[in-house]
Amino acid sequence: MDQQAIQAEMIRLVKEVKAKKPLAGSVTNTVSMELVANIQIAIGGSPAIVFEVNESLNLAKSAEAMYLNMGTYIPLYNDTFPQTADYLYKQKKAWVLDPVGTNSSYDKIGVLKAFKAAKPSIIRANASETIILADMWDLLAEGTAASDFIGVDSQNTVAEAEQAAIALAGWTGGVVAVSGEVDYITDGQYAIRSYGGSPLLTSIIGSGDSLAGAMAVYTTQTDHYLISALAATAVFNYAGKKAALKAEGPGTFTPLFLDAVYQATAEEIADNPFELERVGA
Amino acid sequence: MDQQAIQAEMIRLVKEVKAKKPLAGSVTNTVSMELVANIQIAIGGSPAIVFEVNESLNLAKSAEAMYLNMGTYIPLYNDTFPQTADYLYKQKKAWVLDPVGTNSSYDKIGVLKAFKAAKPSIIRANASETIILADMWDLLAEGTAASDFIGVDSQNTVAEAEQAAIALAGWTGGVVAVSGEVDYITDGQYAIRSYGGSPLLTSIIGSGDSLAGAMAVYTTQTDHYLISALAATAVFNYAGKKAALKAEGPGTFTPLFLDAVYQATAEEIADNPFELERVGA
Amino acid sequence: MDQQAIQAEMIRLVKEVKAKKPLAGSVTNTVSMELVANIQIAIGGSPAIVFEVNESLNLAKSAEAMYLNMGTYIPLYNDTFPQTADYLYKQKKAWVLDPVGTNSSYDKIGVLKAFKAAKPSIIRANASETIILADMWDLLAEGTAASDFIGVDSQNTVAEAEQAAIALAGWTGGVVAVSGEVDYITDGQYAIRSYGGSPLLTSIIGSGDSLAGAMAVYTTQTDHYLISALAATAVFNYAGKKAALKAEGPGTFTPLFLDAVYQATAEEIADNPFELERVGA
Repeated sequence: MDQQAIQAEMIRLVKEVKAKKPLAGSVTNTVSMELVANIQIAIGGSPAIVFEVNESLNLAKSAEAMYLNMGTYIPLYNDTFPQTADYLYKQKKAWVLDPVGTNSSYDKIGVLKAFKAAKPSIIRANASETIILADMWDLLAEGTAASDFIGVDSQNTVAEAEQAAIALAGWTGGVVAVSGEVDYITDGQYAIRSYGGSPLLTSIIGSGDSLAGAMAVYTTQTDHYLISALAATAVFNYAGKKAALKAEGPGTFTPLFLDAVYQATAEEIADNPFELERVGA
Repeated sequence: MDQQAIQAEMIRLVKEVKAKKPLAGSVTNTVSMELVANIQIAIGGSPAIVFEVNESLNLAKSAEAMYLNMGTYIPLYNDTFPQTADYLYKQKKAWVLDPVGTNSSYDKIGVLKAFKAAKPSIIRANASETIILADMWDLLAEGTAASDFIGVDSQNTVAEAEQAAIALAGWTGGVVAVSGEVDYITDGQYAIRSYGGSPLLTSIIGSGDSLAGAMAVYTTQTDHYLISALAATAVFNYAGKKAALKAEGPGTFTPLFLDAVYQATAEEIADNPFELERVGA
Repeated sequence: MDQQAIQAEMIRLVKEVKAKKPLAGSVTNTVSMELVANIQIAIGGSPAIVFEVNESLNLAKSAEAMYLNMGTYIPLYNDTFPQTADYLYKQKKAWVLDPVGTNSSYDKIGVLKAFKAAKPSIIRANASETIILADMWDLLAEGTAASDFIGVDSQNTVAEAEQAAIALAGWTGGVVAVSGEVDYITDGQYAIRSYGGSPLLTSIIGSGDSLAGAMAVYTTQTDHYLISALAATAVFNYAGKKAALKAEGPGTFTPLFLDAVYQATAEEIADNPFELERVGA
């Protein structure tokens, strides 16, 4: 695997998604549902968002991938999340986890622990959430301290979360994407750093949620989830940088960002700067 | 009924709504609540959105019309939807149904079947949902196949749904509006095709939900629901076309569209192109 | 207390919030969650929004203030609201109440009555809600009639709500902010009238909800809640007036307003016109 091969595969993937309009289902955060759906449409996906377990299982059957986001947790999710994840794992369907606010309640912690067996295809999280999740799954190297913060903004740097990300990916056989000023994406063997974006992306609610939603759409036309995660990250970093040039604040940034995501060509997404590194044995 | 009479009645209706600011209540999709409410305000309505049955029944009592949208279904709705619809039917109050994702769960299917007796004043749906609902209500002509798709984007053309729409309107005594590239609105006797809009309208989540929300507002100042459905469709087609001229993607489209809905005069709405056809006996 | 001292304290408060990025938690209206969070971020806060009681209690422990908004009521809130408010009162933590749609159901009325003992630091409401809440808490002067309206738009003028606001603040020892064309803020001893804003602010859903969310952020760095409520109101009135100069309707108004909130300096906020009056003994 080299940069050129990655770029070629990204171009194919981005084009295929736009051509096929794949159905990607979500159980996600009520704060950012609209943005998640609009981003998924903008890259070519067909979104459907549900809450309860029967709708979620039916959707998981029909959809080509699912996205489970743990923000704004409700008791219904005690059924929806584990049953949907279990179904997806058994059917070998791709699913993306965003463990928002990882340790905010016993219910959520219980579900997150159960997700260990259901091996998400992609975990998209901030640095603190990555470390906490690795700790919940007993994957942190001895002597490493997990943050116990509550809230949704990270208290750790991306660098502090790299080993946790590699450990999580090693367990799932999938990919972990740690969002930050420079985004870090790893499958346990390789790590990719993706550049660009804008501080304004962190000034709007739901930018991380919708990034994970985009990853779900991009898992539908490849089994190579490192490429899925990178394609979504690259379109966010490319479009975020472009939108910030014209925006005068977070208000005008959002529509310009959504336009830029919508307009981005496969080549522009593939050309967004990234670095590839070998991290595995 | 001719085009001029329809246009005159639309002008009266649009102006009366702006003057009276009627309260229109909703139980609706969490994905698009904000857009639904903002569209309702933009045309002159006063929105109120609730989830649970007591709030919904109290609101149904105070409001001049209700809007029930079945997206993002939750178990609470097993009480809210049937009881509210039953109350509205008995009180002869107008209500609009958007049967989003018609066959996504047994709960939703059960409620949709029960709605047959509560006869929605207007059903606003895409082509697939229209056909599926007519099938659930045993109104499809023999030999017609209903789609069994799950998801929210239509798998059928509007033309394929015309007979189902006429059959549904024949049953309810109300109006069915099938959304598509050309929108089709029928009361079983007449059919209206409304032109305009933009592909960008289908690139933003909630455009159909908010169209149905606008219809609910327009049911408050007339008993002629064909006019209510057409007025809402016409303002969407007029404003969608206008906003698309300046928008550079779905992001900038949304605020421009909302502005255009807000600015549209009664005359501009009435002048949006439509065709009238006799379809009933 | 004079105008200059108030302005100096506002400048200090606004700057401190931007420097510290305090965590302010919310249980709030699903219609306007995105706007609430984006406004809180724009003034320097770190938002987190939850629904259920365990998440809410954990968040109340971590956060520097909480915001409880009663729109889109669900049965979960029968636990979340009273337990969270009780915890905050006992811990002497600041919390802001927005009693949206005050008398829309028995559940909500029961919770609102129970809130009397938990003494919200700031109550932000429209005129009708202010009067109804004072009536629920048996604080209305004899012979005063409470509105029994259902819906979310006020049926009373701000002037009609002034005595109710003073009585509520007298009970809580906190502050009551009545929103209207001229906003009225009182701690029972002083009343402040804040000027500016735009009719477009009332043409977008959630402007009141997000104003209350901003107040919660501003309670985190002062115990002087009159200043917290005024700072939030002033940034809304300043930014609303500024955004309205360029907006062509409610659609373009929202992003321009959010930009203006984000760009507003402490001095610009402090300079927004207001009048101070002695109302207490």
